[in-house]
Amino acid sequence: MAVFTPVTPHEAAAFLRRLDLGELVELTGCAGGIENTNYFVTTERAGQRQEHVLTLFERLTQEQLPFYLNLMKHLARHGIPVPDPVADAQGQLLHRLNDKPAAVVNRLRGRSELAPSAAHCAAVGDMLARMHLAGASYEHHQPNLRGLAWWNETVPVVLPHLDPSQAQLIQQELAHQNTVALGEAWASLPRGPIHADLFRDNVMFEGETLTGFFDFYFAGCATWVFGVAVCLDDWCIELSAGAGEPSRAHALLTAYEAVRPFSEAERALLPAMMRAGALRFWTSRLWDWYLPRTASMLKPHDPGHFERVLRARVAQDKSEAGFTLPTAGVSP
Amino acid sequence: MAVFTPVTPHEAAAFLRRLDLGELVELTGCAGGIENTNYFVTTERAGQRQEHVLTLFERLTQEQLPFYLNLMKHLARHGIPVPDPVADAQGQLLHRLNDKPAAVVNRLRGRSELAPSAAHCAAVGDMLARMHLAGASYEHHQPNLRGLAWWNETVPVVLPHLDPSQAQLIQQELAHQNTVALGEAWASLPRGPIHADLFRDNVMFEGETLTGFFDFYFAGCATWVFGVAVCLDDWCIELSAGAGEPSRAHALLTAYEAVRPFSEAERALLPAMMRAGALRFWTSRLWDWYLPRTASMLKPHDPGHFERVLRARVAQDKSEAGFTLPTAGVSP
Repeated sequence: MAVFTPVTPHEAAAFLRRLDLGELVELTGCAGGIENTNYFVTTERAGQRQEHVLTLFERLTQEQLPFYLNLMKHLARHGIPVPDPVADAQGQLLHRLNDKPAAVVNRLRGRSELAPSAAHCAAVGDMLARMHLAGASYEHHQPNLRGLAWWNETVPVVLPHLDPSQAQLIQQELAHQNTVALGEAWASLPRGPIHADLFRDNVMFEGETLTGFFDFYFAGCATWVFGVAVCLDDWCIELSAGAGEPSRAHALLTAYEAVRPFSEAERALLPAMMRAGALRFWTSRLWDWYLPRTASMLKPHDPGHFERVLRARVAQDKSEAGFTLPTAGVSP
Repeated sequence: MAVFTPVTPHEAAAFLRRLDLGELVELTGCAGGIENTNYFVTTERAGQRQEHVLTLFERLTQEQLPFYLNLMKHLARHGIPVPDPVADAQGQLLHRLNDKPAAVVNRLRGRSELAPSAAHCAAVGDMLARMHLAGASYEHHQPNLRGLAWWNETVPVVLPHLDPSQAQLIQQELAHQNTVALGEAWASLPRGPIHADLFRDNVMFEGETLTGFFDFYFAGCATWVFGVAVCLDDWCIELSAGAGEPSRAHALLTAYEAVRPFSEAERALLPAMMRAGALRFWTSRLWDWYLPRTASMLKPHDPGHFERVLRARVAQDKSEAGFTLPTAGVSP
């Protein structure tokens, strides 16, 4: 959403006091999120300053939010560096402020690394595997709402806006992904909660040290290897032609497999999942581009990037060399 | 900037009353701009509702802003559909709110057309020429602050982040543009205030009717043909490969020349100016990507797009066919 909800310092102070976070010292709007209103808040309690992020949800509803907030709490408890939602006296993570669902989380240190090195990619691979394992014991379930069913619904809607070559590419890819999902190999893939949108702008670093994963509001239960493929499709792509960048992919996968080695089925389906990741983001960017939800002032992403990524992934998958995994890997 | 300045309804109401805009009915934050804080405000006076945009400036200073605000006022007075700044009782267009420079303009109707047709491009070309002519009588002067001098300063700063092929491209292009700017033909080009950032997200439409140009905060005095080239580099590009799209370019240029035909010198330098436009936006996106100004939560644009546009423009300029203008044109 391009709109945000104003919150006065007076309203924020009363709200933070109810959560026992002390006295408001500073309130700053933060225009990064496109689907939430975010404020950085600094509070003081017993002489200690703390920094939090206050979020008012503009898209997700009171019913949808507990899955995400409880997942973040679960991961934080298991040592994954993610925003940890603050509970009220009744133990609730979801609050209300100015007639919107609201949450408060600790503010992560660091900044996004938009031009990652192999070392950054290795840090992402390592923590991604740890997060997948930590998520295995999460008791709530929600499907990936931007998964195959959504692609099947959405591709026909964007199709009239595409030229013949793009239309052929997207329809063939959708058919391919439906075939993959019917296969026995796909059904046997290990699954759990995945972030599903773990791009460069949703990870914090201090130098080469990963300080957090955030923005879990597209998370859902899906195959872990799809979660890995989404990361490869962003962290390990060179931006000009949209082709895979082998040394960063090697670093990410080696680090992931050092924590959780792939099964044979995952290994075999990784190329198809990288194609699926490119299809997912191409489709959603086409949707945002051609079917804007609000009247003005949105800045959607150029959909052409993920068209190029998809073309490169398909070509790689069909080439003789294919996609070579960096290590032989050991099935668990 | 990724931060925004909170404004309470109470503060907004008092501010709008001082500008004689009536009583505040609704205040909504609008997260579109990255360098300003914008609020949509609805006011009521004598039973009439009006919609305005209240802007607090986060980057531009009290000293810099009069050039832009007076230019908008000048263009609005000459019938160009642009946001028209509201003056206070002393005739001032620039105000202060919550310790920031602030302005109020009428809210434009319509929405951005991100997938423009030839008809949309023709509307842009027509109004662009009218705006250039209307701007000719504007008395204030400011150079284009993202012009040749800025490219010469900034390219060396981003250079260490580029691969050898990109580094060669950007250095050769910079040398080419310096040569062009030394030429007699360039010195003779007609000049005036240009918008300099008139991309798809800075124009409003209702259907195929152009309802406004906005976001003038990169405007400056430069060659008119560079202003045309910037439009061609966005409106008449296909997004996948970054190549020029001839039928939309034809529509834009024909409509422009129907209002203001190019001189022979402009005609000859248009290909160089389209290369210059691609260089300007590739450079600024590289800067935003590799040298982020704030700690987090910024979402800069992928710089790869304008690398592709520049490669395509250079190839077109060097090809035998070159860039053919749609009409023979008449020198004024």
